[in-house]
Amino acid sequence: MPENTNKLIFSSSESSSDLLYATGFQASDPFLYFEVDGIKFAVMSSLELQRAKNESKPDVNILDYSEIIHDVAERNPKGLFNYLVNKYPSLDWHIPTNFPCFYADMAREIGMKIKCENFELFPKRSIKTPDEIDFIRYAMNVTMKAMRRAENILRESDINAKNELIWNNELLTSEILKREINIECIRLGAVAKHTIVAGGLKSAVPHDTGSGILRAHEPVVIDIFPRIEKTGYWGDMTRTFVRGKASDIVKNAYHAVYLAKEGSMKEVRVGAIPEKLHALAVDIMKNNGFKTGKDDIGYYGFIHSLGHGVGLDIHENPKIGPKQLKPFELGEIFTIEPGLYYREWGGIRLEDMVLVTKKGFESFTDYACTLEL
Amino acid sequence: MPENTNKLIFSSSESSSDLLYATGFQASDPFLYFEVDGIKFAVMSSLELQRAKNESKPDVNILDYSEIIHDVAERNPKGLFNYLVNKYPSLDWHIPTNFPCFYADMAREIGMKIKCENFELFPKRSIKTPDEIDFIRYAMNVTMKAMRRAENILRESDINAKNELIWNNELLTSEILKREINIECIRLGAVAKHTIVAGGLKSAVPHDTGSGILRAHEPVVIDIFPRIEKTGYWGDMTRTFVRGKASDIVKNAYHAVYLAKEGSMKEVRVGAIPEKLHALAVDIMKNNGFKTGKDDIGYYGFIHSLGHGVGLDIHENPKIGPKQLKPFELGEIFTIEPGLYYREWGGIRLEDMVLVTKKGFESFTDYACTLEL
Repeated sequence: MPENTNKLIFSSSESSSDLLYATGFQASDPFLYFEVDGIKFAVMSSLELQRAKNESKPDVNILDYSEIIHDVAERNPKGLFNYLVNKYPSLDWHIPTNFPCFYADMAREIGMKIKCENFELFPKRSIKTPDEIDFIRYAMNVTMKAMRRAENILRESDINAKNELIWNNELLTSEILKREINIECIRLGAVAKHTIVAGGLKSAVPHDTGSGILRAHEPVVIDIFPRIEKTGYWGDMTRTFVRGKASDIVKNAYHAVYLAKEGSMKEVRVGAIPEKLHALAVDIMKNNGFKTGKDDIGYYGFIHSLGHGVGLDIHENPKIGPKQLKPFELGEIFTIEPGLYYREWGGIRLEDMVLVTKKGFESFTDYACTLEL
Repeated sequence: MPENTNKLIFSSSESSSDLLYATGFQASDPFLYFEVDGIKFAVMSSLELQRAKNESKPDVNILDYSEIIHDVAERNPKGLFNYLVNKYPSLDWHIPTNFPCFYADMAREIGMKIKCENFELFPKRSIKTPDEIDFIRYAMNVTMKAMRRAENILRESDINAKNELIWNNELLTSEILKREINIECIRLGAVAKHTIVAGGLKSAVPHDTGSGILRAHEPVVIDIFPRIEKTGYWGDMTRTFVRGKASDIVKNAYHAVYLAKEGSMKEVRVGAIPEKLHALAVDIMKNNGFKTGKDDIGYYGFIHSLGHGVGLDIHENPKIGPKQLKPFELGEIFTIEPGLYYREWGGIRLEDMVLVTKKGFESFTDYACTLEL
């Protein structure tokens, strides 16, 4: 799909990263964006008009709602679609896959030709510009600082007779450690939600964000993915730590995950095939004694995809997992995050972020993989 | 629309508060939810299956993706819709207005009867249960603590020879004050994004979140709307402060806004009409010397709606503004937030949150309106 297809978005830039990508304007209320022959327009209410003019990308033409629709009673989405269908009667409009059905039905009913197909409205979003690369590198620097804070707290913790961790004279919980991580992100201008600090058996459930007292000699999976408030770009990284001594199985699993991360990352280059990297990670872990499979109770081993693109969305293209055949392109940025999860003893995950470069790849995650603290 | 209409949602609970309302399950990846004759189902991948069983509302039946769709190649939205159309061939499915057009088109193409109409899928969402009332009251307590932190910082600030504010031996900026507010929210288990600390002329633009050095003797609008991480419910409040001495016009405008807030709030009761409250606020401010209107440059005066419902969305039903005719019901919770904005000197906004009770209303905002600090 050519980049200069006529486009239509009706959303807030909170809910549509496409809209944020196109306009650069952060707004929590929905507004209309359209693009005709590569010329970009956004229609703004009185409340946002001035801020939109100040903060949008320079190539976006900001239209005043009240100037293009004179009748106050018509200042609603239907009025906007009527305006478009009158002004551009013969156009096909391409909308993002997440365009609200209600408004698509409305636009179609008044005669707009709406195409909603399974491709990216802005296919170049996965290929980052130099500015975007800087924004994500910055987000990763924030993420690493927040991880350092978490690691330091674990290191500073004492271990009581019950093998519970004590920090600042109180029991250290997942909740406290998440709070300290999130505060560090806020200090650095980012917002982290759903930060994962999962200890013991909870670490075996990749999306369990963790709760309760953290203990020594057990793995603690820490996954931090803050979004920089100013730019909207995300960081994402995971480390797994044991305060005290890890068991042999945890040490061996950690080593297998580490080898899978390093081994699959080394294959990142222009033209490499995502599913091959995923399969390589699976193989490396299997060859180191850790199988993936399913039994009567559920799945075990490496039960998620190897990675995902990161940008204005925390999960975006490219996808790195089984059946993902689209070769990597120069300037793509994504995570490499193998993991192993067993309900008997817990989980391990290690996650870095890489950029596809001319020479192969560059990792944005300059942070050692240390298991025992 | 009866509550037991058959419903279909395909979304993440991050992007669909309807889904979060129905399931109580916080997930950042999309999943299928459907409801037939009032029986609720959610389909979960291996990654989320166990967590969904642990964390969803008890009346939601959690289905294992791999149990209902045996062919791995069919484990995608189309496979899910095929499953539904085979299992329930004759049903009408109601979807939320923000259901992604791409998936609605897909479901229709394989023969599902999809209805996307302009009403709430869960009309009772605006009428809060006792639990929800507690969650929002709690969110408001967090919000007030964050506001207290901001007020205290302004009070502690010194004023230098240029009338700039100095706090902790550095120039106090909007950015620093927002950071301190957001840290306080994190400490209390909430996430605040887009916090507004708009000083001087920036306070005249209601959605300008503010930037740069804060000054004495000028209004600073502080609008804090944190979301409690655990429950997903929001708080929302605004105060306007002047560190030092306010000018006469700022004092008078503040008084007019205060009277509009108190006067319109007193009319909150079961059966009251939202647009009348809005009109009353406009009248009170006009009678106190502050008109609303438009000139060559733009709008001035009271340029937004009087309030909005708050729950799992920061903006939800009921709406309180012009043309809003639906009478208030018992258990509705919403903001009352009159404001005045003039590009010559800045803006004032005061925002409280109220619950419609049998006796009239209860305010959740126990926080004095003090202009000068």
